Amino acid sequence: MNDTIKLLKSHRSIRKFEKHEIPQELLIELVRSGQAAATSSHIQAYSIIHVTEKQLRSQLVELTGGQKYVASSSDFLVFCADMKRPLEAARGTGENVVSGMTEQLLVATVDVSLVAQNIAIAAESEGLGICYIGGIRNNPQAVSELLKLPEHVYPVFGMCIGYPAHDPDIKPRLPVEAVFKKNSYSDDAEHVNAFNLTMHNYYQTRKEGNKTSDWSQSLAPLFNQKLRSHMQEFLINKGFEMK
Amino acid sequence: MNDTIKLLKSHRSIRKFEKHEIPQELLIELVRSGQAAATSSHIQAYSIIHVTEKQLRSQLVELTGGQKYVASSSDFLVFCADMKRPLEAARGTGENVVSGMTEQLLVATVDVSLVAQNIAIAAESEGLGICYIGGIRNNPQAVSELLKLPEHVYPVFGMCIGYPAHDPDIKPRLPVEAVFKKNSYSDDAEHVNAFNLTMHNYYQTRKEGNKTSDWSQSLAPLFNQKLRSHMQEFLINKGFEMK
Repeated sequence: MNDTIKLLKSHRSIRKFEKHEIPQELLIELVRSGQAAATSSHIQAYSIIHVTEKQLRSQLVELTGGQKYVASSSDFLVFCADMKRPLEAARGTGENVVSGMTEQLLVATVDVSLVAQNIAIAAESEGLGICYIGGIRNNPQAVSELLKLPEHVYPVFGMCIGYPAHDPDIKPRLPVEAVFKKNSYSDDAEHVNAFNLTMHNYYQTRKEGNKTSDWSQSLAPLFNQKLRSHMQEFLINKGFEMK
Repeated sequence: MNDTIKLLKSHRSIRKFEKHEIPQELLIELVRSGQAAATSSHIQAYSIIHVTEKQLRSQLVELTGGQKYVASSSDFLVFCADMKRPLEAARGTGENVVSGMTEQLLVATVDVSLVAQNIAIAAESEGLGICYIGGIRNNPQAVSELLKLPEHVYPVFGMCIGYPAHDPDIKPRLPVEAVFKKNSYSDDAEHVNAFNLTMHNYYQTRKEGNKTSDWSQSLAPLFNQKLRSHMQEFLINKGFEMK
């Protein structure tokens, strides 16, 4: 196992951070590492908002559901799928351009995800810790107003970055046999059952926040309600009509 | 710059591959590295189809628009957003579950992207080269039938992996100032203009496949037509109704 693979496999979300700050030049280096990720047809359909103002950080804590580390991490980034820039570039060549296609939503969402994951890895390679904040989609309209996100730009997730002040366990993952299938899709119920046991044990013995649960039980609240049911209307209003 | 950051910044797509194969245990190690990526609420909403049958690989060349390296790379992976597994796990707890939410489409698309990018980096750290294949969305219905992808599973992109048999230039990226914005969204037209010059020079002088173009011109064909206009209907039929 080489050092990079060792690093990848050591990931866990960090939610408590030391006070000291990330040097600006390192932050830029992380972003450049992110930009080096593959991008669909070179479209680079993303923008990253670096939120440094304390007032904005406090408001983002509220808007993401009270996650205090959104304010207490050294740096907070909001990753946006950005179709505005490529649309305008294409329009600048004199073409009539089409926006709002479902395909475009997917391309931009994938693009920004690849960038973010590179940034996460670059950060961790420098001894930093990160935590993705999907809660940025709790109130995407308010986040958009706060950060002045224009049409064809939507906030996909946030990311806390900073120097770790705790050392949480690495969370187990599904058995590789469940997710890695040969030549066609195959049923994985038996692996899920085994994984429920794994997670039951993990939740009972982990260092931080023990509870009685398993994988299936932890997922139930995501599906027994219309979670973030505002996303469709929000995206349509932002010019991602999913045509 | 540490070795991991150096590695991230050295990425370029590889489309010509040596004949020799990736050892199975290394491939498994790459997938495990992928699984270690962050996952929204631990949902792990992805499956990876490892396509090893020659006949399937040939058919995928056709379905992705004649990209020969889909067959000639050592290994080919199809990355699927998979909401079937978590939906069934949640249903197994006795809950009535909700599917087809736009939010769920986004979560699964981001999840599989983070996994894929970890696999890409793990592969490159072992001297392998990769190429994402967005062309898997050219004919997603036919790909789904070929690989027997059930409802609530959709193919997001493919990935060729193998030992590089060429050494293409690293493609420039937008200036960091264009994509990295402070506290609010800001206009980046001047950076796009500068980048058009960069890309004009790059296309004229790169090692492989010179042409006269720039960034804006290269994007125009993506927007002057309804590219992959089947995606909306395809996703709805697959149970991703974008409600």
